[in-house]
Amino acid sequence: MHAYRTHNCAQLTKAAVGETVRLSGWVHNKRDHGGVLFVDLRDHYGITQIVADSDSPALPVLEKLKLESVVTIDGNVKARADVAVNPNLPTGEIEVFAREVTVQSRAEDLPLIVNSAEDYPEETRLKYRFVDLRRERLHKNIVLRSNVIASLRRRMIDQGFTEFQTPILGASSPEGARDYLVPSRLHPGRFYALPQAPQMFKQLLMVAGFDRYFQIAPCFRDEDLRADRSPEFYQLDFEMSFVTQEDVFQAIEPVLAGVFEEFSGGKTVTPAGTFPRIPYAEAMLKYGSDKPDLRNPLIISDVTDHFTTSGFGLFEKIVGTGGRVRVVPAPNTHEKSRKFFDDMNDWARREGFAGLGYVTRKGGEFGGPIAKNHGTEGMEKLYAELGLGENDGLFFAAGKEKDAAKLAGAARTRVAEELGLIEEGCFKFCWIVDFPMFEYDEEQKKVDFSHNPFSMPQGEMEALETQDPLDIKAWQYDIVCNGYELSSGAIRNHRPDIMYKAFEIAGYSKESVDENFSGMIEAFKLGAPPHGGSAPGIDRIVMLLADEPNIREVIAFPLNQKAQDLMMGAPSQVEPRQLRDVHIRTVEAPKPGN
Amino acid sequence: MHAYRTHNCAQLTKAAVGETVRLSGWVHNKRDHGGVLFVDLRDHYGITQIVADSDSPALPVLEKLKLESVVTIDGNVKARADVAVNPNLPTGEIEVFAREVTVQSRAEDLPLIVNSAEDYPEETRLKYRFVDLRRERLHKNIVLRSNVIASLRRRMIDQGFTEFQTPILGASSPEGARDYLVPSRLHPGRFYALPQAPQMFKQLLMVAGFDRYFQIAPCFRDEDLRADRSPEFYQLDFEMSFVTQEDVFQAIEPVLAGVFEEFSGGKTVTPAGTFPRIPYAEAMLKYGSDKPDLRNPLIISDVTDHFTTSGFGLFEKIVGTGGRVRVVPAPNTHEKSRKFFDDMNDWARREGFAGLGYVTRKGGEFGGPIAKNHGTEGMEKLYAELGLGENDGLFFAAGKEKDAAKLAGAARTRVAEELGLIEEGCFKFCWIVDFPMFEYDEEQKKVDFSHNPFSMPQGEMEALETQDPLDIKAWQYDIVCNGYELSSGAIRNHRPDIMYKAFEIAGYSKESVDENFSGMIEAFKLGAPPHGGSAPGIDRIVMLLADEPNIREVIAFPLNQKAQDLMMGAPSQVEPRQLRDVHIRTVEAPKPGN
Repeated sequence: MHAYRTHNCAQLTKAAVGETVRLSGWVHNKRDHGGVLFVDLRDHYGITQIVADSDSPALPVLEKLKLESVVTIDGNVKARADVAVNPNLPTGEIEVFAREVTVQSRAEDLPLIVNSAEDYPEETRLKYRFVDLRRERLHKNIVLRSNVIASLRRRMIDQGFTEFQTPILGASSPEGARDYLVPSRLHPGRFYALPQAPQMFKQLLMVAGFDRYFQIAPCFRDEDLRADRSPEFYQLDFEMSFVTQEDVFQAIEPVLAGVFEEFSGGKTVTPAGTFPRIPYAEAMLKYGSDKPDLRNPLIISDVTDHFTTSGFGLFEKIVGTGGRVRVVPAPNTHEKSRKFFDDMNDWARREGFAGLGYVTRKGGEFGGPIAKNHGTEGMEKLYAELGLGENDGLFFAAGKEKDAAKLAGAARTRVAEELGLIEEGCFKFCWIVDFPMFEYDEEQKKVDFSHNPFSMPQGEMEALETQDPLDIKAWQYDIVCNGYELSSGAIRNHRPDIMYKAFEIAGYSKESVDENFSGMIEAFKLGAPPHGGSAPGIDRIVMLLADEPNIREVIAFPLNQKAQDLMMGAPSQVEPRQLRDVHIRTVEAPKPGN
Repeated sequence: MHAYRTHNCAQLTKAAVGETVRLSGWVHNKRDHGGVLFVDLRDHYGITQIVADSDSPALPVLEKLKLESVVTIDGNVKARADVAVNPNLPTGEIEVFAREVTVQSRAEDLPLIVNSAEDYPEETRLKYRFVDLRRERLHKNIVLRSNVIASLRRRMIDQGFTEFQTPILGASSPEGARDYLVPSRLHPGRFYALPQAPQMFKQLLMVAGFDRYFQIAPCFRDEDLRADRSPEFYQLDFEMSFVTQEDVFQAIEPVLAGVFEEFSGGKTVTPAGTFPRIPYAEAMLKYGSDKPDLRNPLIISDVTDHFTTSGFGLFEKIVGTGGRVRVVPAPNTHEKSRKFFDDMNDWARREGFAGLGYVTRKGGEFGGPIAKNHGTEGMEKLYAELGLGENDGLFFAAGKEKDAAKLAGAARTRVAEELGLIEEGCFKFCWIVDFPMFEYDEEQKKVDFSHNPFSMPQGEMEALETQDPLDIKAWQYDIVCNGYELSSGAIRNHRPDIMYKAFEIAGYSKESVDENFSGMIEAFKLGAPPHGGSAPGIDRIVMLLADEPNIREVIAFPLNQKAQDLMMGAPSQVEPRQLRDVHIRTVEAPKPGN
C-alpha cells in the first residue's frame, strides 16, 4: 500500500464501499457527536468524511489534534446512512471508518480559520498566505487562474502560435511607466530594467522571421498600486507577421471567446467571429467611452442640432461656442420621483462635472426646466427622433465635445446601474478600432500623436502625404470586455520612411527619431515584415472570470498595496557586501521600524 | 485575396500547379541565369523558389533588391522541370512565376549573411541577433526550444500537475549564489531580489494544500558566466505532496523520457520506468562521479585489497595509510603503443593528479612497472577477478578515496573517448540516490551537512537518534543524462522537530535555525504535508537535444558572457531621477567607454 494514500479525498464513492483505503490530508473540521468523532479530511481535490468511534485507536489521537494538522488515515469505506448522504460532495455517499491514524504534521494555533468564509485583515491574509490559500475561495481562484492560463496556451498553440521567452533582465527605456532597476555587478554604474512589456522583443522576433509569437509574459511596472494593479502582472503577449488588423482579430477572438466560454460558469460569451468592431469616434459618441460596457443597453445620442436655437439658453450658449449636447435615455422612469433625477445631477457635480440636466416624462407629459424652455413641440420632435416613449426620461450632458462625451458616458453607466438595466450573466466583447493617429494638442498648440506613435497609419505613406493629419486613423485597436479594456494592440509601423514622416507631422526631426528609437529603426532597415499584435491582460481576465474586484485575489503570492511581501519579508535590507558587489549605496538609511 | 499571402513558403506542392498565389517573405537568395532570375523566398515555415524572366514586371524590381528585403509576390505555380526538382524541399517540385512584386521592406547591407553557415564573432551575432536568428541553425534551435517547453508543459499536465506562477520580485536570501537586487521605491534602503529558484514558494504551495505544482520557472543568478550558464535561465520546477522518492521518479520519468524521445531525432532514450537508480556510493566507486555518463561502458573497480601487500611499493604505501586503488580497464589496447599509455599519465599530471599508473597486456603478456612489481601471478588473479582479457590494458588511480575516485572517474571518460567507446546516438538517464545526509568536515573537524540540510533523512527522527550520522542517507536524488546533471531534488524535511535535530547534529542550535529559517519553520508548524520534487534545467535539456555546447545558442535573446545585451544596450546608464526614485546612488562613475 502506498505510504500516504490509495485515493485522494475526492475519489471515493459508493462503488468503494467495503474497501480498505488510506487517505492523507488536512483536518478541515471536527464534529464530536458524543463519543463518535467526525473529521472532514481535506486535500487539494476535495473532502472525505472520516469517522472514529470509541473502538478506533484513531479516536484519542484525532480528538487531541488541532484543525489543519496533516494526517494519514487507514480505514474502511462505509456507505453513509441515507439521512447523512451529502449530495453536494463527490464523496457524499460514503465515509471512512478510521482504523489507524498517522500524524504527519501537528498544527499549532492558526492565525486564520480555514474552514470558514470569515474575513480577515489583508495583512493577516498575506502574512499567512499559505494558510489563506487553503481556503475555498482562494484555492478556487488560483486553480482557475492556472486552468485559464493552460487553456490560453493550448488555444494559442492551436491557432498556430509558438511560445518564446524574452529576457527579464532588459534595458531601461525612457518612456512609459517607471522601471524596476537592477544594478549590474560587472558594469559599475549601469542598470538592467525589468520589462514593462516585451514589446521591442516581440517585434524583433517578427523581424527575425518567426511568424506567430506568443508568451504568457511577466511584466513589471513600478507604479503606485490600486486594487486592479500589481507591480508584477502577466499578459498574453502576441505578435503576428504578414497580417492585417482583421487577421489579428480572427486569430485572437476564438482564443478569448473560447477561454471565457470554458470558464464562465454558464455566463454567455460573445461568440468568436462576432465581436463588434466599433470605431473610436462611434464609441465616444454612443457610449461616451472607448471601453464601452455592452451589457448596458443605453445608447447616447448627440442632439446638438436640436439646440442651436432653443428656448434653453444654457444649451444655446454651449452650442453656439462649438459645444455639444448629448443625451442618455432613462427608460420607464415615469414612476421615479423628482429626487431620483436631482440625485443624478448631484452625483454629476460630485464627479466634477457642471451638472446633468434632465427631462422627465410621465404618460407623455414632459417635466423639468429643459422641457419647459425647449417647448413641448421641440421635445416631441426630439423624442420621436430618439425613438423614446411616453414614460422615458432623458438626461442631458452638455459642454465641450470631450467633456460632454465623458459626462454622458459616466451618466450612461450610472443610469443603467440605478435602473438595474445592466444585463447579467454575460461577457460582452467588442473591438474599438480606427483610433485617430494624431490629435491637436491644445496646450502645445500643435499636432501630436494621439495614442501610439509606432502604429501604422491607415493609408500608410499616401495618407500622411495627402490627408489632413487629424483625419488619419491608425491601425490600432483595443479589446474590451464588459467595460474593461483587456488590451491595446496595433498593426505596427515597420517602415522607417513612414515612421520618419509620421514623426515629422508630430513635429519631431529625423535626428530625434534616430536618437530615441535607433534600435527599432535600425532593425527595420534590415528587412522587416508587416506585423501586429496585442497583449490581453491575464490577471484582468481571471478577475472577470472569478468575479473578483481585487487583483490580489487571483495571484498566489501577491505583493500588498505597499508592494511588500509580508510572508517572505520583501523588500528587505541586504548585506552591505551585496550593495558593494553591485556598486551602489543607499541614499538614506531605512526609517526605524519601516 | 489576402493582403500578404495565400500560402506560406512551405505549403505549395505539385497539387497547386496552375494556381494563382500570393507569397510573402524574405529574399533569401538570388541566382541570375542570364535574364532569368531565381529568388529563394523564405519565411518562418520554409522556402519557395520564385522565377522572374524578362516578361515579368517583377524582374527589374527583384534584380535591384538586396538580400533579406521583404517582398510580396503575386504569381502562378508551375511544375519544375524534372532536373530542377529539389527533393529536400517540401516545395521542391514547384516554382512560382512572379507576375508582380510589392516591396514591403527594403534591406540595407547586412552585418551577417543569413543564407550561409559562415561563422561570425559572437559580438556581431548578438548585436544583430534579429538577423542571426533568421539563420537556419538558430531558427531551428529556438523553435526546438519552444516545442520542447510546450511538450514539457503538456506532459506535466497529463501527469496531473498544475502550473502556478511564483513571484519574480522576491526576497534576498543569504545563502546560495549572488542575488540580482532590485531597489524599492516605496521602502527606501530596502531591496527585492530576483529568485534563484522558486524553492520556498513551491514548498509553501504544498503547505497551502495544492498537490502537484510545476512551473517553467525563470531563475536568476548573478554568477560569473560560462558556456553553459546564463544569468537568466529556466527550470522545470515541480513539487508534489504526499509522495515518496519513488513517486517523484514515476511522475517525472515519463515526462523526461517522453520529451527526449519526441525530439531526439532518432537517438534512443532510456525508457520511462527503467531509469537506473544508482546509490551515490556506488556511482562514486563504479564511475568516479555522481554524474556518470552511462554511454561509457567502462566500469571502475576497487582493487585495494590486491595491493595491501604488493611488490609495488607506492600502492602499498597508499593502501597502508588508508588510501584506495581504483582501476579503469582499457579493453583491446594490445596494439596501442607505449606512448598511448604514457600520454594518459601525462594528461593526469596536467589535470593536477599525481599520475595515472598502467598495465599493458598483449596476448596475455603483461607490461609496465606495476605489473612487473606486482608479479604475473598477482596480475592474473586481478585480471580474472575483473573479468579482463588477454589484450586489455588497465589504468590505476591511487590515493585518498576521494582523489582516487575523482582521478578514476576522469580517466574513465578519457580512456573511453580515446578508444572511441562512448556509445553514440543515445540519451542515457539515471538517478543518483542515497546521498549521505552528513559528512565529516576535515577543516572544521566536525560533522556537517553533506548536501542539502532541508532534505528528509532516510529513517527520519529514528535514524537521527539512533544511527551514526555518517551512515545516514538522505531522500535526495539527482537526475543525470549522458553525464550531465539535469537537476537535484529531494523529499523535503517537513517536520520542525526532525529539522531541529538534524541541525543539532551538524552543530547548529535551535535558536540559529529559528533565526535563519523562520519562514519555513513557522509554515511547517501550521500543518505541512510530506512533499518533494526537483527542477530539471530546461536550457540544459534543449542544449542536449540541439547538440549545442553553448547555452546562448538555445536562448532567443541571451546576454553575452559579460552579461550584456548588445542589441538593446543593457545594462545601461539611467537617468539620475531614476536612481533618486529608488533611493540609491552609484558608488563609482562608470569608466569611460565601458
